[in-house]
Amino acid sequence: MGNCIVAQSGGPTSVINATLAGVVKANQMNPIYTKVFGGLNGIEGILQEKLVDLSHMSEEENRILRQTPSSALGSCRYKLKRSNTADFEKLFAVMEKYDVDTLFYIGGNDSMDTVFALSEYALANKITNRRFVGCPKTVDNDLMMTDHCPGYGSAAKFIATTALQTWLDVNVYTRQEVFILETMGRDAGWLAASACLSGIVDLVILPEIPFDKEVFLKEVKKSIDETNKCYVVVSEGARYADGTYLAAGEAKNDGFGHAILGGAANAVKDLILTSGVANRAKVQDLSTAQRCHASEQSLVDVEESFKLGMSAHMRSQDPKFTGQMVGVKRKDSKVYDVEYFATAASNVANHVKNFPVEWANPNFRGVNEKAIAYMRPLIEGQPVIIYHNGVPAYVKPYYKK
Amino acid sequence: MGNCIVAQSGGPTSVINATLAGVVKANQMNPIYTKVFGGLNGIEGILQEKLVDLSHMSEEENRILRQTPSSALGSCRYKLKRSNTADFEKLFAVMEKYDVDTLFYIGGNDSMDTVFALSEYALANKITNRRFVGCPKTVDNDLMMTDHCPGYGSAAKFIATTALQTWLDVNVYTRQEVFILETMGRDAGWLAASACLSGIVDLVILPEIPFDKEVFLKEVKKSIDETNKCYVVVSEGARYADGTYLAAGEAKNDGFGHAILGGAANAVKDLILTSGVANRAKVQDLSTAQRCHASEQSLVDVEESFKLGMSAHMRSQDPKFTGQMVGVKRKDSKVYDVEYFATAASNVANHVKNFPVEWANPNFRGVNEKAIAYMRPLIEGQPVIIYHNGVPAYVKPYYKK
Repeated sequence: MGNCIVAQSGGPTSVINATLAGVVKANQMNPIYTKVFGGLNGIEGILQEKLVDLSHMSEEENRILRQTPSSALGSCRYKLKRSNTADFEKLFAVMEKYDVDTLFYIGGNDSMDTVFALSEYALANKITNRRFVGCPKTVDNDLMMTDHCPGYGSAAKFIATTALQTWLDVNVYTRQEVFILETMGRDAGWLAASACLSGIVDLVILPEIPFDKEVFLKEVKKSIDETNKCYVVVSEGARYADGTYLAAGEAKNDGFGHAILGGAANAVKDLILTSGVANRAKVQDLSTAQRCHASEQSLVDVEESFKLGMSAHMRSQDPKFTGQMVGVKRKDSKVYDVEYFATAASNVANHVKNFPVEWANPNFRGVNEKAIAYMRPLIEGQPVIIYHNGVPAYVKPYYKK
Repeated sequence: MGNCIVAQSGGPTSVINATLAGVVKANQMNPIYTKVFGGLNGIEGILQEKLVDLSHMSEEENRILRQTPSSALGSCRYKLKRSNTADFEKLFAVMEKYDVDTLFYIGGNDSMDTVFALSEYALANKITNRRFVGCPKTVDNDLMMTDHCPGYGSAAKFIATTALQTWLDVNVYTRQEVFILETMGRDAGWLAASACLSGIVDLVILPEIPFDKEVFLKEVKKSIDETNKCYVVVSEGARYADGTYLAAGEAKNDGFGHAILGGAANAVKDLILTSGVANRAKVQDLSTAQRCHASEQSLVDVEESFKLGMSAHMRSQDPKFTGQMVGVKRKDSKVYDVEYFATAASNVANHVKNFPVEWANPNFRGVNEKAIAYMRPLIEGQPVIIYHNGVPAYVKPYYKK
């Protein structure tokens, strides 16, 4: 009986640690691995043999880990290039040295590409005793195959709640005012759309629908004429028909060739004030807080993330289970429910699942009932959060120990 | 037996409605007023006779009102000028028309000046049957006389929690990075200081301590050299020794002659990147969310705010109780506890209580144990929040009904 490694990659979420907690707990319930190692800082740290033994985590620590946001094992933006065989050789050498049968990799589509690449390499080199299993996570909700992504529900809950609260705030004065909430989401509108769960959004600008300035400003004016207020939500990835980001002035590039976005709300504010359709506009950029505000986890999200980790562990008992990602499938039932399933990581790697344009109302007027029916169950339920000294109790990151 | 009016003014908080709920509930328990009117949009709306009858609010509505952020009665930025006797005459005429004995005004130091001015006017004009009672609220915690202000504890709790969560987020990558959290607080550092309750803040820039760029950058460098990270908190009101705001480029003016602040974090980011002490810096401006994020109310804050409203109501039974503000006094006890007391509104009007400079550590290195001992009890406890459909249940604002 060998060991396993669990590692995390990409941007953190509020529940990425719940999936880690699920793998650890499953092995305590059925110890198919002698040790569960945590790999620190993703593939990058594993290559440097940065491992911690998580096998004997107490139930209390496991419980607190589930409510701890961000990646307790640390993360990386390191991309395993298929041309870089030295990295592959090193990784398999580390796995051999530590007798690692299975590597669980919790991440987004870049991470699923890593799972795919490693399983391909093993196959090509006739290595049959190393398995690679992906667990999805991303607040952006943009992974293929899975009904939704662990992390999305909690971020959506925070966004919808904050939309409702800031709408109450901006309405207390009788003066004219536009409020603009900026969300993350990269090239997918799932997070921006989630603000509509608050029921108060006037206009939403999604990346999937080309931004038409004239139509948009006309709608802002209509809201201002009717109520003297307009509540706008804009995705960081919103863009014009020619593909230019609204936040183009501020766009940079990360290590993966993705644009670093941000500033869309300020661009919208400038447009509105310059056009004169309103004389006052205020911006709230939810920024980092939206992906780590774990004190308002969705109970559905944290429980699914935990079970998904358990499911990945259980399935990995099959020696042929490699190059796979575990996802959730929504059951066709009256009451919301999911099943866990596996799919080839290659189906997920480097793809993006967009928000369906047919779920958006015309003229930026929010999203329709299909969108709400899809999103609503994902934000339901509130876990009981354990507090110490007035702030939530969190595990000390393993990379700090 | 006459009636009373309750109204709200200034910027909203997460618990300003709890004080309103306290006045309403107290009158149901001891109906010293026939009707409790809500005055919409503060003094401005009362002058226009915009009143709603809240006397028969159900316990369920009262319960949900306590967890509803922002001002359910609406607010105003209207300043009652002593020279404008027409406004005074109109206000007393409205009170006579609706048989109003007492006006409860929930607000900050401008509102306490309104309470002061109205009671002065009554005295000067020998009007003995109208009373004016102030209830403090402000996330800024900058009111004199009261140990602390309703609204501060909940904002401080959200800030400390968000600091902890974003610190966990920024630390997952091994790369060099400065994270800069901007808080509100106007010219007082209470909110910025509250981030230190998280235990993770490296540097904090308070308005009370002149910003010394050289010392600050040296400290950033020290943190970067030691950990490759630096977590900075900056108050919107941070300024140089000559009084220039760090956010000076963006400062405007509101109706009261106060500067509209914001942009301090971006100014700090620019300083850091330009100086070269770090090559990456990220900003989180908590903006509007910090004063209305009621899904994380402090239980101490919401309960004190409610009781303060009750205390104001009870005291107003005394026909001579006018021109007063009800505040909280911290008891000299081992376990945190408060008493409610009254003070002349003139002691509070137009003053600012600053964060004590002796509670700040040298070189921007956070705050000391005295500060923590003062702040910690104010963020303790979590009320049970009632949710509907995955988001907190809130009352529909009375100005929308």
